[in-house]
Amino acid sequence: MSKASVPVNRVVLAYSGGLDTSVILKWLQQTYGCEVVTFTADLGQGEELEPARAKAVLMGVKPEHIFIEDLREEFVRDYIFPMMRANALYEGLYLLGTSIARPLIAKKQIEIAKKVGADAVSHGATGKGNDQVRFELGYYALAPDIRIIAPWREWDLNSREQLIAFAEAHQIPVSKDKRGESPFSTDANLLHTSSEGKVLEDPWNEVPDYVYSRTNSPEDAPDVAQYITMDFEAGDPVAVDGEPLSPANLLAKLNELGKLHGIGRLDLVENRFVGMKSRGMYETPGGTILHLAHRGIEQITLDRGAAHLKDELAPKYAQLLYNGFWFSPEREMLQAAIDHSQAKVSGTVRLKLYKGSVSVVGRKSPNSLYSANIVTFEDDAGAYDQRDAEGFIKLNALRLRLLGRRDGK
Amino acid sequence: MSKASVPVNRVVLAYSGGLDTSVILKWLQQTYGCEVVTFTADLGQGEELEPARAKAVLMGVKPEHIFIEDLREEFVRDYIFPMMRANALYEGLYLLGTSIARPLIAKKQIEIAKKVGADAVSHGATGKGNDQVRFELGYYALAPDIRIIAPWREWDLNSREQLIAFAEAHQIPVSKDKRGESPFSTDANLLHTSSEGKVLEDPWNEVPDYVYSRTNSPEDAPDVAQYITMDFEAGDPVAVDGEPLSPANLLAKLNELGKLHGIGRLDLVENRFVGMKSRGMYETPGGTILHLAHRGIEQITLDRGAAHLKDELAPKYAQLLYNGFWFSPEREMLQAAIDHSQAKVSGTVRLKLYKGSVSVVGRKSPNSLYSANIVTFEDDAGAYDQRDAEGFIKLNALRLRLLGRRDGK
Amino acid sequence: MSKASVPVNRVVLAYSGGLDTSVILKWLQQTYGCEVVTFTADLGQGEELEPARAKAVLMGVKPEHIFIEDLREEFVRDYIFPMMRANALYEGLYLLGTSIARPLIAKKQIEIAKKVGADAVSHGATGKGNDQVRFELGYYALAPDIRIIAPWREWDLNSREQLIAFAEAHQIPVSKDKRGESPFSTDANLLHTSSEGKVLEDPWNEVPDYVYSRTNSPEDAPDVAQYITMDFEAGDPVAVDGEPLSPANLLAKLNELGKLHGIGRLDLVENRFVGMKSRGMYETPGGTILHLAHRGIEQITLDRGAAHLKDELAPKYAQLLYNGFWFSPEREMLQAAIDHSQAKVSGTVRLKLYKGSVSVVGRKSPNSLYSANIVTFEDDAGAYDQRDAEGFIKLNALRLRLLGRRDGK
Amino acid sequence: MSKASVPVNRVVLAYSGGLDTSVILKWLQQTYGCEVVTFTADLGQGEELEPARAKAVLMGVKPEHIFIEDLREEFVRDYIFPMMRANALYEGLYLLGTSIARPLIAKKQIEIAKKVGADAVSHGATGKGNDQVRFELGYYALAPDIRIIAPWREWDLNSREQLIAFAEAHQIPVSKDKRGESPFSTDANLLHTSSEGKVLEDPWNEVPDYVYSRTNSPEDAPDVAQYITMDFEAGDPVAVDGEPLSPANLLAKLNELGKLHGIGRLDLVENRFVGMKSRGMYETPGGTILHLAHRGIEQITLDRGAAHLKDELAPKYAQLLYNGFWFSPEREMLQAAIDHSQAKVSGTVRLKLYKGSVSVVGRKSPNSLYSANIVTFEDDAGAYDQRDAEGFIKLNALRLRLLGRRDGK
Repeated sequence: MSKASVPVNRVVLAYSGGLDTSVILKWLQQTYGCEVVTFTADLGQGEELEPARAKAVLMGVKPEHIFIEDLREEFVRDYIFPMMRANALYEGLYLLGTSIARPLIAKKQIEIAKKVGADAVSHGATGKGNDQVRFELGYYALAPDIRIIAPWREWDLNSREQLIAFAEAHQIPVSKDKRGESPFSTDANLLHTSSEGKVLEDPWNEVPDYVYSRTNSPEDAPDVAQYITMDFEAGDPVAVDGEPLSPANLLAKLNELGKLHGIGRLDLVENRFVGMKSRGMYETPGGTILHLAHRGIEQITLDRGAAHLKDELAPKYAQLLYNGFWFSPEREMLQAAIDHSQAKVSGTVRLKLYKGSVSVVGRKSPNSLYSANIVTFEDDAGAYDQRDAEGFIKLNALRLRLLGRRDGK
Repeated sequence: MSKASVPVNRVVLAYSGGLDTSVILKWLQQTYGCEVVTFTADLGQGEELEPARAKAVLMGVKPEHIFIEDLREEFVRDYIFPMMRANALYEGLYLLGTSIARPLIAKKQIEIAKKVGADAVSHGATGKGNDQVRFELGYYALAPDIRIIAPWREWDLNSREQLIAFAEAHQIPVSKDKRGESPFSTDANLLHTSSEGKVLEDPWNEVPDYVYSRTNSPEDAPDVAQYITMDFEAGDPVAVDGEPLSPANLLAKLNELGKLHGIGRLDLVENRFVGMKSRGMYETPGGTILHLAHRGIEQITLDRGAAHLKDELAPKYAQLLYNGFWFSPEREMLQAAIDHSQAKVSGTVRLKLYKGSVSVVGRKSPNSLYSANIVTFEDDAGAYDQRDAEGFIKLNALRLRLLGRRDGK
Repeated sequence: MSKASVPVNRVVLAYSGGLDTSVILKWLQQTYGCEVVTFTADLGQGEELEPARAKAVLMGVKPEHIFIEDLREEFVRDYIFPMMRANALYEGLYLLGTSIARPLIAKKQIEIAKKVGADAVSHGATGKGNDQVRFELGYYALAPDIRIIAPWREWDLNSREQLIAFAEAHQIPVSKDKRGESPFSTDANLLHTSSEGKVLEDPWNEVPDYVYSRTNSPEDAPDVAQYITMDFEAGDPVAVDGEPLSPANLLAKLNELGKLHGIGRLDLVENRFVGMKSRGMYETPGGTILHLAHRGIEQITLDRGAAHLKDELAPKYAQLLYNGFWFSPEREMLQAAIDHSQAKVSGTVRLKLYKGSVSVVGRKSPNSLYSANIVTFEDDAGAYDQRDAEGFIKLNALRLRLLGRRDGK
Repeated sequence: MSKASVPVNRVVLAYSGGLDTSVILKWLQQTYGCEVVTFTADLGQGEELEPARAKAVLMGVKPEHIFIEDLREEFVRDYIFPMMRANALYEGLYLLGTSIARPLIAKKQIEIAKKVGADAVSHGATGKGNDQVRFELGYYALAPDIRIIAPWREWDLNSREQLIAFAEAHQIPVSKDKRGESPFSTDANLLHTSSEGKVLEDPWNEVPDYVYSRTNSPEDAPDVAQYITMDFEAGDPVAVDGEPLSPANLLAKLNELGKLHGIGRLDLVENRFVGMKSRGMYETPGGTILHLAHRGIEQITLDRGAAHLKDELAPKYAQLLYNGFWFSPEREMLQAAIDHSQAKVSGTVRLKLYKGSVSVVGRKSPNSLYSANIVTFEDDAGAYDQRDAEGFIKLNALRLRLLGRRDGK
């Protein structure tokens, strides 16, 4: 193995405590003969983190090299909210729940690497997916000369059986439920849970019920709609039903509501950055509510010019995030443009949640640009002179008329 | 009235047979002393057209100057389907049901004007809305020297009372239910029904139930989901549940299904081309299903490059349609690009309809670009070499690394 | 004249002191019976401003209502430089010299209107051009309820003879050289001089020599090339040939150099916002040098992602400026994105000026992203692993291969 | 060498007859033990092709496996002209002369591979450049399962000395002038000559005179300007000075003119697709004239909507070409849009060539959309009603006024 022949001293591993990254931990120690530093983040994936510590200790990681951090507030405030300001949807539909988590993990790994003097970082993403790209573009952007070890692209453990055999051979505890093959693979954080692989691989087959973990099925949701309000300030949500909440708590609250009402399921075949199509199932309960609500408040507070420019930039922004270019000048440029538009995006949106769908049913704002006065069918007391429309149309038409004349119409 | 002082000989009026356009008919005869030619189109609005003929006769229109035409197939095939190929959504949400009907009406009026030697055309759209723009840009593009009469921008009949008084003074029959003010105003065609004005003018107030006419409320929809399939050929739908249907019949079928399941309601505050915000309620039952289904079939048949380019062009395409630029070189250029991408967009989509929402749950195609072989977590027998990912990432990262080094990271 | 029947109290006129705006001054006093406040700006047009004061006094403007201001530094620093950061070219070629001056004039007029309590503003732009739009969009954006008087759209003085007759009838001095018709019309400021109309109206005829006023003809330029350097800081030029210069002085210096070497002439048929095509001749000597030099420094200091995003945004930015939307949220959003990219755009560009053309012949920067080390054909000591290219290409090709297989290639 | 361990039967090599590809030819035979088929194309690079045949024979290539083809007409008609219709400029300045040649060579290699039953293709592009990507994306798009051999990424011949040693060891004739190191590297075809490397590697140093081969220096160009005309039909040039010419002959004629007058030199630091910046010098004499002339004819024949859409799409189109995505759905979609706009782009442009610069000085067309009638400062006999401008401005301003009011202006 030629790569391993270049010596590594200390590597910071994104460590979940699960089977895969435990095997990686051991494999790194063995293959590179290096110290492993573990980093375990709480991004709201809903798992206990302390067992990861115990497992790391068990595998010989020094206590001072075990980093466990609750990143939920930072994740929502500095990553999810900026993305939501952009109304970003990848390929028209996907709320980018996995993509948005990777840059933060990469950033923290690099910070730790600098702190502990590590010369390498490592992650558990496979060689076919987008996550390897997202992690590594993040690493390289923030530490251009860091060494990256991507075990899935290096080793020969190409099946679950081999992984488990390796684990057993090295006294890595394997929980019972991991022994059998999972019928699909998941990723989870405070924004979403994604599932893909195996039973989902035929895009003609409906996603089986048991794959869903974050939402009720719409059929099981309450038979009565629930109405909620969300308050926004400068483009970000700050309260639900009038109750001010921190970013992470607010998203958690929306997740609860979305789960109850079966909101945010998406069955998608998408185009990966690495060139293939994949089929995934996403559950983004709170994020789906937030996305719609943000559009709702923008409807009355954002000028048309700003709104249309945002709509034109959003697909590119979404592609950048999906492809792993969070830490890139072009993403930051787009963010600067988007954020500039959000200063007055404040007010209240009223939403209806019912059996799988969420609808904006009302919006109000001290910054509203909507003027019933002007738009009214009733007498507007001169607020708008309908005769202006004639000149407006005639000058907009002028080039088309010149064209029509030339073309003999 | 200075405009009226320029003589008009014969004018083709877009005539619905309703109160407003009947008043316009009479007003044109009186004010301009000209012959009125009526054009009444069936675009699937769900109204009888023959009463319009009787009314026109009653008001002195020559029988050979009364044109009534069933445009449903042309409307769906040549206007709605091309737009659906673009996945066009105005301001992220609106399926453009009103916008897409205007160009066809304008085109037919101009054809009739040429046939009967008319020197003018007229419509019943008001001076605050988008429809005047859409009609008139169409007229001017197709007949650059046509005279346009827009009564709502010229006359002094600024309230319903005045309209009714004018009607009564001129023996125009006014149906009883038109005497009282309607609490909102509507537009309908095979694609959608829109409602706006009056009770809808406060965007904070939920749209009252009685405004909806084309869809059940989700609450009243069946408690059991319905699954359907749609077949596509070259980007257009051709069958529902295996039954081949003409464009108009197919959309009508989807409308039935959408209505039953409460699908396609949208409460929106949008930005009009004339510069103000307005609040509307749209019901697009079949169109909502079609939009999602089209995205579904594209997911497996469209290459990423084509798909992303389409996503980037779609907002501009939607703005052009909304603003009335159907007959413009730039809309045609975008259509050429979009249509070029659709040749292989064929196959079958399976959808679930349930209480207000529609979801793609399966898609298959002889042209599928999805390859389970390549994407699989299982052994792919060498179809994809995971080691390629390293070079891919490193060269994508190179510029970010150079940047990071320069910036002292 | 119905417009004039709505009383105006005090109007701020953009006043050059020339024949046209002198006639307007008088016409406003007469037609509206209002006080006229004059605003005369030095934007580097190269004319004495004090005669404007004398003339205004002569026509009865109160001394305290005569505003004369040297705006050259503000103009270059806050308008031209931001535009240059964007590399904006309208329709691929035009450096927007007229467009960029209007917003500043509009802003100052509104400031004065607020100071003196004026209820109206007025300008001398005609009803066919872009400038009326640019002035008035500026007025409305900054003072939504201001009254605007556009004499050229209101009065009946439709020929030069009538203008002169009006002037003579009202004791307005007409300089001798204004008595005959000018064979073309011009606009000038520190950035450019534009000429249009009359002898230029046939776009097949070459622009006659006598139309040029700001540049030598390339044939008359020196036979020996001149080399200069320009230093940039954060996207803006700060020195020429090592000499630090204020924004206006720097542009004036570049104008001198450009004039000498016959640089910056452009014969263009362009599309006006009001819907027609017009033919103009532009001389932008210093601006042409600056534009190229800015691209030169960006070449080594700007990352590809930022550079390409800028290239994609630039046409839209240029359209916004051309159409008069400087004071719009979307222009500000684009500016925010562009400015975000410029922090490291510092360094030195070397240019060759010779008989009508300017070329970048060298660039260097402490922030350079160019690495001879990596790009070299020589041994790069491992800075770049050519084998990475294979994976890069293969994953970029993957979707094309899947497509080729599907399509039977 | 693991790659070489997978057997290759027959490989089609893009063969110039020069030292590098001759070494590759031999290396392929040796390393892979396979038959080599040579393909030598005349793209107007200005070299004799028959010596390549002799050399191939000498190295044991079967006569029926030596393919030499004159592609000049196809190259200009089907590649250069479509690109010129797009007004494509990479990074604002570069006319893409190298990029546009690669797809055609790739296409021909694949055609030959299919004809002779080859299982592999090979090229002489290095592992740091864009050309490897352009060749290989073309190969893969047209023959998804082709084997690609890129010797520069595989072998150990990393310096010119080693190359020459290899050549000598294998009886490959090395012309005397190739023994010394060339001080820079070039690529040439009918559109341009590019030079890069070595003496050009410091972007601060001016390109030395001896690097230029396709153009006179502006200083050596004639002291008197030359005027020419170019006729266009449907977006493509068809005649120079009234003389109809085939595509390749026309471009050759423009090259002559451009060379004489020192037109089309460009010193550029650009961003490669593989992630690094490189400095190149380009000479595109005829292409520079054509580019400007095409813009000139579009100015009077293209509607604003089409022109602006083209300007917005052009950067993306240029990036696709530069990056090697000629044979991609998205390039074809853009081409479809662009070509749709060109039907009426016919007429005549008059140009002035003088000491390094080319200027459009006149244009006329039977399809002209320019109307002196409408744009004139003189009386236009009612062709344009200046009063329309007021309504046009007021409705364009409406949203800005609402915004201004909200924001307290």
